[in-house]
Amino acid sequence: MTTGATARRGRPGHDISTVLATSVEVFNERGFDGTSIDDLARRLKISKSAIYHHVESKDALLGLALDRALTGLEEVAKHVRSLDGPAMDRLDTLLRGSVAVLVERLPYVTLLLRVRGNSEVERQALTRRRRLDRLAAELVKQAVGEGDLRPDIDPAVTARLLFGMVNSLTEWLKVGRGASSADIAEVVAAVAFDGLRVHREA
Amino acid sequence: MTTGATARRGRPGHDISTVLATSVEVFNERGFDGTSIDDLARRLKISKSAIYHHVESKDALLGLALDRALTGLEEVAKHVRSLDGPAMDRLDTLLRGSVAVLVERLPYVTLLLRVRGNSEVERQALTRRRRLDRLAAELVKQAVGEGDLRPDIDPAVTARLLFGMVNSLTEWLKVGRGASSADIAEVVAAVAFDGLRVHREA
Repeated sequence: MTTGATARRGRPGHDISTVLATSVEVFNERGFDGTSIDDLARRLKISKSAIYHHVESKDALLGLALDRALTGLEEVAKHVRSLDGPAMDRLDTLLRGSVAVLVERLPYVTLLLRVRGNSEVERQALTRRRRLDRLAAELVKQAVGEGDLRPDIDPAVTARLLFGMVNSLTEWLKVGRGASSADIAEVVAAVAFDGLRVHREA
Repeated sequence: MTTGATARRGRPGHDISTVLATSVEVFNERGFDGTSIDDLARRLKISKSAIYHHVESKDALLGLALDRALTGLEEVAKHVRSLDGPAMDRLDTLLRGSVAVLVERLPYVTLLLRVRGNSEVERQALTRRRRLDRLAAELVKQAVGEGDLRPDIDPAVTARLLFGMVNSLTEWLKVGRGASSADIAEVVAAVAFDGLRVHREA
Protein backbone atom coordinates (compact mmCIF):
# COMPACT_ATOMS: atom_id res chain seq x y z
CA MET A 1 0.00 0.00 0.00
CA THR A 2 1.38 3.44 -0.87
CA THR A 3 1.26 6.41 1.48
CA GLY A 4 -1.10 8.12 -0.91
CA ALA A 5 -3.49 5.18 -0.72
CA THR A 6 -3.42 5.22 3.07
CA ALA A 7 -4.18 8.92 3.08
CA ARG A 8 -7.08 8.47 0.69
CA ARG A 9 -8.47 5.57 2.69
CA GLY A 10 -8.35 7.78 5.77
CA ARG A 11 -10.65 10.43 4.33
CA PRO A 12 -14.00 10.28 6.16
CA GLY A 13 -16.83 8.64 4.28
CA HIS A 14 -14.59 7.15 1.66
CA ASP A 15 -13.56 3.91 3.34
CA ILE A 16 -14.41 0.58 1.76
CA SER A 17 -17.44 0.00 4.06
CA THR A 18 -19.03 3.24 2.90
CA VAL A 19 -18.25 2.50 -0.73
CA LEU A 20 -19.75 -0.97 -0.30
CA ALA A 21 -22.88 0.15 1.57
CA THR A 22 -23.66 2.89 -0.94
CA SER A 23 -22.93 0.64 -3.92
CA VAL A 24 -25.34 -2.00 -2.61
CA GLU A 25 -27.99 0.70 -2.20
CA VAL A 26 -27.57 1.74 -5.83
CA PHE A 27 -27.45 -1.88 -7.08
CA ASN A 28 -30.75 -2.57 -5.31
CA GLU A 29 -32.36 0.56 -6.77
CA ARG A 30 -31.18 0.24 -10.37
CA GLY A 31 -30.18 -3.40 -10.68
CA PHE A 32 -26.54 -4.49 -10.79
CA ASP A 33 -26.34 -4.61 -14.58
CA GLY A 34 -28.04 -1.23 -14.81
CA THR A 35 -25.42 0.42 -12.58
CA SER A 36 -22.11 1.76 -13.87
CA ILE A 37 -19.02 2.72 -11.88
CA ASP A 38 -19.90 6.28 -13.01
CA ASP A 39 -23.26 5.98 -11.25
CA LEU A 40 -21.53 4.82 -8.07
CA ALA A 41 -18.95 7.63 -8.23
CA ARG A 42 -21.72 10.20 -8.65
CA ARG A 43 -23.69 8.85 -5.68
CA LEU A 44 -20.57 8.61 -3.50
CA LYS A 45 -19.41 12.04 -4.66
CA ILE A 46 -15.92 10.66 -5.28
CA SER A 47 -13.96 9.98 -8.46
CA LYS A 48 -14.00 6.67 -10.29
CA SER A 49 -10.31 6.23 -9.46
CA ALA A 50 -11.13 6.61 -5.76
CA ILE A 51 -13.46 3.61 -6.15
CA TYR A 52 -10.84 1.67 -8.11
CA HIS A 53 -8.48 2.36 -5.24
CA HIS A 54 -10.62 0.05 -3.09
CA VAL A 55 -11.77 -2.57 -5.61
CA GLU A 56 -10.60 -3.56 -9.04
CA SER A 57 -14.04 -3.82 -10.64
CA LYS A 58 -17.80 -3.55 -10.21
CA ASP A 59 -17.85 -7.35 -10.06
CA ALA A 60 -15.42 -7.31 -7.14
CA LEU A 61 -17.76 -4.92 -5.30
CA LEU A 62 -20.63 -7.31 -5.95
CA GLY A 63 -18.51 -10.19 -4.64
CA LEU A 64 -17.77 -8.33 -1.39
CA ALA A 65 -21.44 -7.42 -0.95
CA LEU A 66 -22.72 -10.95 -1.58
CA ASP A 67 -20.05 -12.33 0.75
CA ARG A 68 -21.39 -10.11 3.52
CA ALA A 69 -24.83 -11.70 3.18
CA LEU A 70 -23.53 -15.22 2.67
CA THR A 71 -21.04 -15.34 5.56
CA GLY A 72 -23.84 -14.25 7.93
CA LEU A 73 -26.14 -17.02 6.70
CA GLU A 74 -23.31 -19.57 6.66
CA GLU A 75 -22.46 -18.82 10.30
CA VAL A 76 -26.06 -19.61 11.22
CA ALA A 77 -25.88 -22.82 9.18
CA LYS A 78 -22.61 -23.82 10.88
CA HIS A 79 -24.17 -23.28 14.30
CA VAL A 80 -27.26 -25.30 13.33
CA ARG A 81 -25.09 -28.16 12.01
CA SER A 82 -23.34 -28.31 15.40
CA LEU A 83 -26.62 -28.86 17.27
CA ASP A 84 -28.19 -32.13 18.38
CA GLY A 85 -31.85 -32.72 19.14
CA PRO A 86 -35.03 -32.88 17.06
CA ALA A 87 -34.73 -31.66 13.46
CA MET A 88 -37.77 -29.47 14.10
CA ASP A 89 -35.85 -27.48 16.73
CA ARG A 90 -32.82 -27.16 14.48
CA LEU A 91 -35.06 -25.99 11.62
CA ASP A 92 -36.62 -23.44 13.94
CA THR A 93 -33.12 -22.21 14.90
CA LEU A 94 -32.15 -22.00 11.21
CA LEU A 95 -35.31 -20.05 10.42
CA ARG A 96 -34.87 -17.55 13.25
CA GLY A 97 -31.15 -17.16 12.61
CA SER A 98 -31.80 -16.52 8.91
CA VAL A 99 -34.40 -13.87 9.75
CA ALA A 100 -31.89 -12.20 12.10
CA VAL A 101 -29.21 -12.05 9.38
CA LEU A 102 -31.78 -10.78 6.88
CA VAL A 103 -32.87 -7.99 9.22
CA GLU A 104 -29.33 -7.02 10.23
CA ARG A 105 -27.86 -7.15 6.71
CA LEU A 106 -31.04 -6.31 4.79
CA PRO A 107 -29.57 -4.56 1.71
CA TYR A 108 -26.93 -7.28 1.28
CA VAL A 109 -29.42 -10.14 1.53
CA THR A 110 -31.81 -8.26 -0.80
CA LEU A 111 -29.01 -8.07 -3.36
CA LEU A 112 -28.17 -11.76 -2.87
CA LEU A 113 -31.77 -12.78 -3.53
CA ARG A 114 -31.76 -10.97 -6.87
CA VAL A 115 -28.64 -12.71 -8.18
CA ARG A 116 -29.42 -14.74 -11.31
CA GLY A 117 -26.02 -16.22 -12.24
CA ASN A 118 -25.02 -13.70 -14.91
CA SER A 119 -21.29 -13.83 -14.03
CA GLU A 120 -18.73 -15.99 -12.27
CA VAL A 121 -19.18 -13.97 -9.05
CA GLU A 122 -22.95 -14.49 -9.22
CA ARG A 123 -22.59 -18.20 -9.97
CA GLN A 124 -20.30 -18.69 -6.97
CA ALA A 125 -22.83 -16.93 -4.76
CA LEU A 126 -25.62 -19.15 -6.11
CA THR A 127 -23.55 -22.25 -5.33
CA ARG A 128 -23.14 -21.09 -1.73
CA ARG A 129 -26.86 -20.23 -1.52
CA ARG A 130 -27.81 -23.68 -2.78
CA ARG A 131 -25.72 -25.26 0.00
CA LEU A 132 -27.85 -23.34 2.52
CA ASP A 133 -31.05 -24.39 0.74
CA ARG A 134 -29.95 -28.01 0.94
CA LEU A 135 -29.50 -27.77 4.71
CA ALA A 136 -33.04 -26.41 5.03
CA ALA A 137 -34.44 -29.18 2.81
CA GLU A 138 -32.56 -31.87 4.82
CA LEU A 139 -33.89 -30.56 8.11
CA VAL A 140 -37.46 -30.47 6.75
CA LYS A 141 -37.05 -34.05 5.53
CA GLN A 142 -35.75 -35.19 8.91
CA ALA A 143 -38.52 -33.35 10.75
CA VAL A 144 -41.09 -35.08 8.53
CA GLY A 145 -39.38 -38.41 9.31
CA GLU A 146 -39.55 -37.63 13.03
CA GLY A 147 -43.29 -36.95 12.72
CA ASP A 148 -43.10 -33.23 13.50
CA LEU A 149 -43.86 -31.78 10.04
CA ARG A 150 -46.72 -32.71 7.74
CA PRO A 151 -45.80 -35.54 5.41
CA ASP A 152 -48.30 -34.68 2.65
CA ILE A 153 -46.14 -31.99 1.06
CA ASP A 154 -42.84 -32.61 -0.75
CA PRO A 155 -40.09 -31.61 1.74
CA ALA A 156 -38.27 -29.64 -0.98
CA VAL A 157 -41.44 -27.62 -1.64
CA THR A 158 -42.00 -27.12 2.09
CA ALA A 159 -38.46 -25.80 2.53
CA ARG A 160 -38.87 -23.44 -0.42
CA LEU A 161 -42.19 -22.04 0.80
CA LEU A 162 -40.78 -21.64 4.31
CA PHE A 163 -37.73 -19.71 3.20
CA GLY A 164 -39.75 -18.01 0.47
CA MET A 165 -41.75 -16.47 3.27
CA VAL A 166 -38.54 -15.47 5.09
CA ASN A 167 -37.03 -13.99 1.94
CA SER A 168 -40.19 -12.04 1.13
CA LEU A 169 -39.33 -9.89 4.15
CA THR A 170 -36.78 -8.13 1.92
CA GLU A 171 -39.72 -6.74 -0.06
CA TRP A 172 -41.18 -4.67 2.73
CA LEU A 173 -38.91 -4.46 5.76
CA LYS A 174 -37.23 -1.08 6.09
CA VAL A 175 -33.70 -0.73 7.43
CA GLY A 176 -33.65 0.31 11.10
CA ARG A 177 -37.42 0.69 11.38
CA GLY A 178 -40.03 -1.22 13.34
CA ALA A 179 -39.87 -4.53 15.15
CA SER A 180 -36.72 -6.32 16.33
CA SER A 181 -35.42 -9.29 14.36
CA ALA A 182 -36.48 -11.62 17.21
CA ASP A 183 -40.08 -10.32 17.02
CA ILE A 184 -40.14 -10.71 13.26
CA ALA A 185 -38.70 -14.23 13.52
CA GLU A 186 -41.37 -15.09 16.09
CA VAL A 187 -44.16 -14.07 13.69
CA VAL A 188 -42.67 -15.91 10.73
CA ALA A 189 -42.17 -19.08 12.80
CA ALA A 190 -45.74 -18.84 14.16
CA VAL A 191 -47.27 -18.47 10.68
CA ALA A 192 -45.08 -21.11 9.04
CA PHE A 193 -45.34 -23.78 11.69
CA ASP A 194 -48.82 -23.24 13.09
CA GLY A 195 -50.63 -21.53 10.23
CA LEU A 196 -52.94 -18.57 10.19
CA ARG A 197 -56.24 -20.28 10.78
CA VAL A 198 -57.92 -20.33 14.16
CA HIS A 199 -58.88 -23.92 14.89
CA ARG A 200 -62.16 -23.76 16.69
CA GLU A 201 -63.85 -26.64 18.48
CA ALA A 202 -66.81 -27.95 16.52
CA MET B 1 -50.25 1.30 -41.04
CA THR B 2 -48.17 0.94 -44.21
CA THR B 3 -48.13 -2.17 -46.36
CA GLY B 4 -44.52 -2.67 -45.36
CA ALA B 5 -45.46 -2.69 -41.72
CA THR B 6 -48.21 -5.25 -42.31
CA ALA B 7 -45.78 -7.48 -44.14
CA ARG B 8 -43.25 -7.20 -41.33
CA ARG B 9 -45.89 -7.94 -38.74
CA GLY B 10 -46.86 -11.02 -40.72
CA ARG B 11 -43.36 -12.52 -40.62
CA PRO B 12 -43.41 -15.52 -38.29
CA GLY B 13 -41.92 -14.91 -34.85
CA HIS B 14 -41.93 -11.16 -35.20
CA ASP B 15 -45.39 -10.29 -33.93
CA ILE B 16 -45.83 -8.17 -30.83
CA SER B 17 -46.50 -11.19 -28.57
CA THR B 18 -43.17 -12.75 -29.50
CA VAL B 19 -41.36 -9.44 -29.08
CA LEU B 20 -43.01 -9.03 -25.69
CA ALA B 21 -42.37 -12.59 -24.46
CA THR B 22 -38.72 -12.51 -25.48
CA SER B 23 -38.19 -9.02 -24.04
CA VAL B 24 -39.59 -10.11 -20.69
CA GLU B 25 -37.25 -13.09 -20.73
CA VAL B 26 -34.26 -10.79 -21.26
CA PHE B 27 -35.48 -8.23 -18.69
CA ASN B 28 -35.74 -11.02 -16.09
CA GLU B 29 -32.26 -12.31 -16.91
CA ARG B 30 -30.38 -9.02 -17.06
CA GLY B 31 -32.64 -6.60 -15.22
CA PHE B 32 -34.73 -3.98 -17.04
CA ASP B 33 -32.19 -1.17 -16.61
CA GLY B 34 -29.39 -3.49 -17.72
CA THR B 35 -31.15 -4.32 -21.00
CA SER B 36 -30.86 -2.15 -24.11
CA ILE B 37 -33.03 -2.24 -27.23
CA ASP B 38 -29.84 -3.52 -28.92
CA ASP B 39 -29.83 -6.51 -26.54
CA LEU B 40 -33.47 -7.23 -27.40
CA ALA B 41 -32.84 -6.92 -31.14
CA ARG B 42 -29.91 -9.34 -30.89
CA ARG B 43 -31.95 -11.90 -28.96
CA LEU B 44 -34.94 -11.56 -31.29
CA LYS B 45 -32.67 -11.63 -34.34
CA ILE B 46 -34.49 -8.63 -35.78
CA SER B 47 -33.46 -5.01 -36.28
CA LYS B 48 -34.03 -2.28 -33.73
CA SER B 49 -36.41 -0.58 -36.16
CA ALA B 50 -38.47 -3.79 -36.33
CA ILE B 51 -38.91 -3.48 -32.55
CA TYR B 52 -39.74 0.23 -32.83
CA HIS B 53 -42.37 -0.73 -35.35
CA HIS B 54 -44.28 -2.41 -32.51
CA VAL B 55 -43.51 -0.13 -29.56
CA GLU B 56 -42.15 3.36 -29.26
CA SER B 57 -39.71 2.65 -26.43
CA LYS B 58 -38.27 0.12 -24.00
CA ASP B 59 -40.51 1.69 -21.35
CA ALA B 60 -43.58 1.03 -23.48
CA LEU B 61 -42.55 -2.65 -23.72
CA LEU B 62 -42.23 -2.74 -19.94
CA GLY B 63 -45.68 -1.17 -19.64
CA LEU B 64 -47.23 -3.84 -21.86
CA ALA B 65 -45.48 -6.62 -19.93
CA LEU B 66 -46.51 -5.32 -16.51
CA ASP B 67 -50.05 -4.81 -17.76
CA ARG B 68 -50.21 -8.48 -18.70
CA ALA B 69 -49.41 -9.47 -15.10
CA LEU B 70 -51.60 -6.79 -13.54
CA THR B 71 -54.76 -7.35 -15.59
CA GLY B 72 -54.63 -11.04 -14.66
CA LEU B 73 -54.37 -10.25 -10.95
CA GLU B 74 -56.98 -7.49 -11.21
CA GLU B 75 -59.49 -9.88 -12.80
CA VAL B 76 -59.07 -12.18 -9.81
CA ALA B 77 -59.53 -9.23 -7.45
CA LYS B 78 -62.66 -8.12 -9.32
CA HIS B 79 -64.13 -11.61 -9.03
CA VAL B 80 -63.29 -11.76 -5.31
CA ARG B 81 -64.88 -8.34 -4.70
CA SER B 82 -68.11 -9.65 -6.29
CA LEU B 83 -68.36 -12.54 -3.81
CA ASP B 84 -70.34 -12.76 -0.60
CA GLY B 85 -69.67 -15.05 2.34
CA PRO B 86 -66.97 -15.33 4.99
CA ALA B 87 -63.85 -13.20 4.39
CA MET B 88 -61.77 -16.35 4.95
CA ASP B 89 -63.33 -17.98 1.87
CA ARG B 90 -62.82 -14.84 -0.21
CA LEU B 91 -59.20 -14.66 0.95
CA ASP B 92 -58.74 -18.29 -0.01
CA THR B 93 -60.18 -17.53 -3.47
CA LEU B 94 -57.86 -14.53 -3.83
CA LEU B 95 -54.87 -16.64 -2.83
CA ARG B 96 -55.65 -19.49 -5.23
CA GLY B 97 -56.52 -17.11 -8.05
CA SER B 98 -53.27 -15.21 -7.56
CA VAL B 99 -51.27 -18.45 -7.65
CA ALA B 100 -53.05 -19.40 -10.90
CA VAL B 101 -52.17 -16.07 -12.55
CA LEU B 102 -48.60 -16.37 -11.29
CA VAL B 103 -48.21 -19.86 -12.74
CA GLU B 104 -49.88 -18.98 -16.06
CA ARG B 105 -48.08 -15.65 -16.55
CA LEU B 106 -44.90 -16.51 -14.62
CA PRO B 107 -42.33 -14.34 -16.47
CA TYR B 108 -44.68 -11.33 -16.43
CA VAL B 109 -45.43 -11.62 -12.70
CA THR B 110 -41.71 -12.18 -12.01
CA LEU B 111 -40.97 -8.93 -13.79
CA LEU B 112 -43.76 -7.13 -11.90
CA LEU B 113 -42.37 -8.25 -8.55
CA ARG B 114 -38.97 -6.73 -9.36
CA VAL B 115 -40.34 -3.29 -10.21
CA ARG B 116 -38.95 -0.64 -7.84
CA GLY B 117 -40.56 2.56 -9.13
CA ASN B 118 -37.65 3.86 -11.22
CA SER B 119 -39.90 5.41 -13.90
CA GLU B 120 -43.47 6.60 -14.48
CA VAL B 121 -44.42 3.21 -15.96
CA GLU B 122 -43.01 1.44 -12.90
CA ARG B 123 -44.72 3.83 -10.50
CA GLN B 124 -48.09 3.27 -12.18
CA ALA B 125 -47.59 -0.49 -11.88
CA LEU B 126 -46.72 -0.13 -8.19
CA THR B 127 -49.91 1.89 -7.63
CA ARG B 128 -51.96 -0.90 -9.19
CA ARG B 129 -50.05 -3.52 -7.15
CA ARG B 130 -50.72 -1.64 -3.94
CA ARG B 131 -54.45 -1.67 -4.69
CA LEU B 132 -54.27 -5.48 -4.83
CA ASP B 133 -52.25 -5.58 -1.59
CA ARG B 134 -54.90 -3.46 0.09
CA LEU B 135 -57.64 -5.93 -0.88
CA ALA B 136 -55.60 -8.77 0.66
CA ALA B 137 -55.00 -6.78 3.85
CA GLU B 138 -58.72 -5.89 4.11
CA LEU B 139 -59.77 -9.52 3.73
CA VAL B 140 -57.26 -10.62 6.37
CA LYS B 141 -58.58 -7.95 8.72
CA GLN B 142 -62.19 -9.04 8.13
CA ALA B 143 -61.28 -12.71 8.62
CA VAL B 144 -59.60 -11.84 11.92
CA GLY B 145 -62.76 -9.94 12.90
CA GLU B 146 -64.87 -12.95 11.99
CA GLY B 147 -62.69 -15.13 14.23
CA ASP B 148 -61.23 -17.24 11.42
CA LEU B 149 -57.65 -15.92 11.41
CA ARG B 150 -55.32 -15.53 14.39
CA PRO B 151 -55.67 -12.13 16.00
CA ASP B 152 -52.17 -12.01 17.54
CA ILE B 153 -50.42 -10.90 14.34
CA ASP B 154 -50.89 -7.51 12.68
CA PRO B 155 -53.24 -8.13 9.68
CA ALA B 156 -50.96 -6.11 7.39
CA VAL B 157 -48.01 -8.35 8.33
CA THR B 158 -50.14 -11.47 7.89
CA ALA B 159 -51.19 -10.36 4.41
CA ARG B 160 -47.59 -9.61 3.45
CA LEU B 161 -46.27 -12.95 4.68
CA LEU B 162 -49.12 -14.78 2.96
CA PHE B 163 -48.53 -13.15 -0.41
CA GLY B 164 -44.78 -13.17 0.21
CA MET B 165 -45.05 -16.93 0.18
CA VAL B 166 -47.14 -16.83 -3.01
CA ASN B 167 -44.71 -14.45 -4.70
CA SER B 168 -41.70 -16.57 -3.70
CA LEU B 169 -43.00 -19.14 -6.19
CA THR B 170 -41.50 -16.95 -8.93
CA GLU B 171 -38.06 -17.85 -7.54
CA TRP B 172 -38.26 -21.54 -8.30
CA LEU B 173 -41.24 -22.45 -10.46
CA LYS B 174 -40.29 -23.27 -14.03
CA VAL B 175 -42.53 -22.36 -16.96
CA GLY B 176 -44.56 -25.32 -18.18
CA ARG B 177 -42.96 -27.80 -15.83
CA GLY B 178 -44.32 -29.79 -12.91
CA ALA B 179 -47.55 -29.48 -10.95
CA SER B 180 -50.73 -27.70 -12.09
CA SER B 181 -51.53 -24.29 -10.70
CA ALA B 182 -54.42 -25.80 -8.71
CA ASP B 183 -52.05 -28.28 -7.03
CA ILE B 184 -49.58 -25.54 -6.22
CA ALA B 185 -52.35 -23.32 -4.85
CA GLU B 186 -53.55 -26.22 -2.69
CA VAL B 187 -50.10 -26.61 -1.12
CA VAL B 188 -49.66 -22.87 -0.50
CA ALA B 189 -53.13 -22.61 1.05
CA ALA B 190 -52.46 -25.66 3.26
CA VAL B 191 -49.14 -24.29 4.54
CA ALA B 192 -50.37 -20.73 5.01
CA PHE B 193 -53.66 -21.51 6.70
CA ASP B 194 -52.90 -24.69 8.63
CA GLY B 195 -49.14 -24.50 9.09
CA LEU B 196 -46.45 -27.10 8.69
CA ARG B 197 -46.46 -28.59 12.13
CA VAL B 198 -48.19 -31.86 12.91
CA HIS B 199 -50.36 -31.34 15.96
CA ARG B 200 -50.17 -34.53 17.95
CA GLU B 201 -52.35 -35.47 20.88
CA ALA B 202 -50.46 -35.22 24.17
